[in-house]
Amino acid sequence: MKLKCPVCGREYEEPVQRCECGEPVEFELLKGEPYIGKSVWERFWDFWPVEPELELSLGEGDTPLIRSKLGKELDVKLYLKNETVNPTWSFKDRGTFLAMSYALKAGYKAVGTVSTGNMAASVAAYASRFGLDAKILVSESASDEKLKAVSVYGGDVIRVKGDYGRLYFESLKLGERLGVYFINSDNPFRIEGYKGITFEIAEELSPDYVLVPTSSGGLFRGIAKGFIELKESGLIDDLPTLVAVQAEGCSPICRAFKEGRERIERFEKPKTIAKAIANPYPPSGNAVLKLLREFGWLCVSVNDEEIATAQRKLAGEGFFVQPASATGVAALEKLTESGVISEGSKVVSILTGSGLKTLFQVEGDEIRECPLEGLESCIRSGS
Amino acid sequence: MKLKCPVCGREYEEPVQRCECGEPVEFELLKGEPYIGKSVWERFWDFWPVEPELELSLGEGDTPLIRSKLGKELDVKLYLKNETVNPTWSFKDRGTFLAMSYALKAGYKAVGTVSTGNMAASVAAYASRFGLDAKILVSESASDEKLKAVSVYGGDVIRVKGDYGRLYFESLKLGERLGVYFINSDNPFRIEGYKGITFEIAEELSPDYVLVPTSSGGLFRGIAKGFIELKESGLIDDLPTLVAVQAEGCSPICRAFKEGRERIERFEKPKTIAKAIANPYPPSGNAVLKLLREFGWLCVSVNDEEIATAQRKLAGEGFFVQPASATGVAALEKLTESGVISEGSKVVSILTGSGLKTLFQVEGDEIRECPLEGLESCIRSGS
Repeated sequence: MKLKCPVCGREYEEPVQRCECGEPVEFELLKGEPYIGKSVWERFWDFWPVEPELELSLGEGDTPLIRSKLGKELDVKLYLKNETVNPTWSFKDRGTFLAMSYALKAGYKAVGTVSTGNMAASVAAYASRFGLDAKILVSESASDEKLKAVSVYGGDVIRVKGDYGRLYFESLKLGERLGVYFINSDNPFRIEGYKGITFEIAEELSPDYVLVPTSSGGLFRGIAKGFIELKESGLIDDLPTLVAVQAEGCSPICRAFKEGRERIERFEKPKTIAKAIANPYPPSGNAVLKLLREFGWLCVSVNDEEIATAQRKLAGEGFFVQPASATGVAALEKLTESGVISEGSKVVSILTGSGLKTLFQVEGDEIRECPLEGLESCIRSGS
Repeated sequence: MKLKCPVCGREYEEPVQRCECGEPVEFELLKGEPYIGKSVWERFWDFWPVEPELELSLGEGDTPLIRSKLGKELDVKLYLKNETVNPTWSFKDRGTFLAMSYALKAGYKAVGTVSTGNMAASVAAYASRFGLDAKILVSESASDEKLKAVSVYGGDVIRVKGDYGRLYFESLKLGERLGVYFINSDNPFRIEGYKGITFEIAEELSPDYVLVPTSSGGLFRGIAKGFIELKESGLIDDLPTLVAVQAEGCSPICRAFKEGRERIERFEKPKTIAKAIANPYPPSGNAVLKLLREFGWLCVSVNDEEIATAQRKLAGEGFFVQPASATGVAALEKLTESGVISEGSKVVSILTGSGLKTLFQVEGDEIRECPLEGLESCIRSGS
């Protein structure tokens, strides 16, 4: 097991969670070849740094890649990678499963995470599946309603009063002292799990662009590492251009990228409807910045109106997603309008989580009322 | 295209929705062989009465079949077919997609359904994907909150005042007059779509029992027809024992079955937490009864406490389902206790829809509160 800091380059032989320099760590590049198998875990067996506990899988991954009609009006070939059909209805399950596989093998009796949403539900669910205790640390502001979809899995949900940004780092220290393996947003195993998204995309097409809603940076780093490993293994010829997409109201990575800085700065007073990607000080921010620079990739931010419009358009094609998941399609409109993405390009956008999770944010449409007796005229008069 | 009434035997050459005798119709048995293919639609291409519009698929079907630890305490091999990871997070999508494929080919410009829950969302989503207008008729009592997850897809949602049972039949008549193709709970194409569940199960194992949450009877009939066709095609040796599972508070099929009657009667004052299967006068009730008798299959009802317990147990293994989806596991406990299902049996239970859809019904667990400074002692003192 060899880990490396993608920012300062320091190497580690033990499974540390972060580099001494404060940045995340990641596994050395894995190479291999694909096999025949039912699950992405089996087909890309060479590419995981720990053996997946297949008998404890909940069926995460192997999600549909669907050609979208929304590409037509933008003159591109748009494909949606629908991660909302994972076991807890977000992409987090892929990373949670792989990291939990490690935690079990390493003998941990308890796991934890710091999250108020998708990742909290995911870690709680897999902990119960794996028979491990779960310590789910959530922010002060998390509503009881939102936490129902987390506590239902039976873990120990703790609302922590205090600075939420600090909590990420505190949890890692505490976890080490208490023997709780924290699977936070950019845990090195978690990131490896996200590579499955890349592998499944590559099985079907060679995209020119991949749009990735980006918060902590964990998903972006995982997808990037997947493509780099496929190329190094000789399984694809070219890397696509990856696009980190952020909400304008909380875009620390895009801001630093635009300003030519090497390090992100805390984004003060974040405000966006895309709560799931509203991390003001992303723990993998600098690592993502470095990737963007190294490969000439892009960072695009979109405002709440653009996000809401994209969310409506996606629902209008049968995909009900969280606002955060609509940011990719919102960014695509900007990138095609400005000519950055040219006609005929093959573009994949990642739909990260189900709209059911943020149903409380949705404004209901008008519902007509009709008596059964007058139903015919009611249907005739309808839209 | 040949349809037959499974109750009176009358035959039809045109795609009628119901038999003159009032009962549903169904397609003649289809036979064939399996092919290599990515989706269940392609692998069982011979078995659909209409060509699936693959390029409009949202990726429905091909859901995980997961070995459950809950079987261990009951001394059976229990497998959960997780239909909550379909595009609108219920099994309905399979039937909706196939029926919509027919509607499109037949030249309809509008489709409809009568439902307050999973099916309403499913038809609304696929209508938008297929570019058809949607008329979603819901009952007077449907809450605005619940309908948000339906209206988000952009169809015409109409709350109909009057008898909800009559609405099913009225909608078919009106649909014929107005050129709206209604894809209700036991539409013949919808039922064919559900056969995919059977095919996917059969690809992995030969179950002794299949537990099917049963309301209108459409899902049960589809799964049954799938197994019968596989046997007639020589692809499996034996039929499993199918178990129709109902909520005690609304169990018209089980009651008629127990009382030895040939026809169901309206279940007065239905009351159960399993709203998704609370149809007091199921339109395929008599057809299901006939199947149960003909094959010596079973009908089991479970009460709300048993359902709630099963729902908690499933969440305790990582599956957050609707109460209706937990009825199968609740029934399994009764059937193993009473010795009907014997030790070592292979049992499949269908998880029909996501628990996120009924989040409002969930009582949240207690959430602990801790200051960041005292987090260590808080985690130590936790469960």
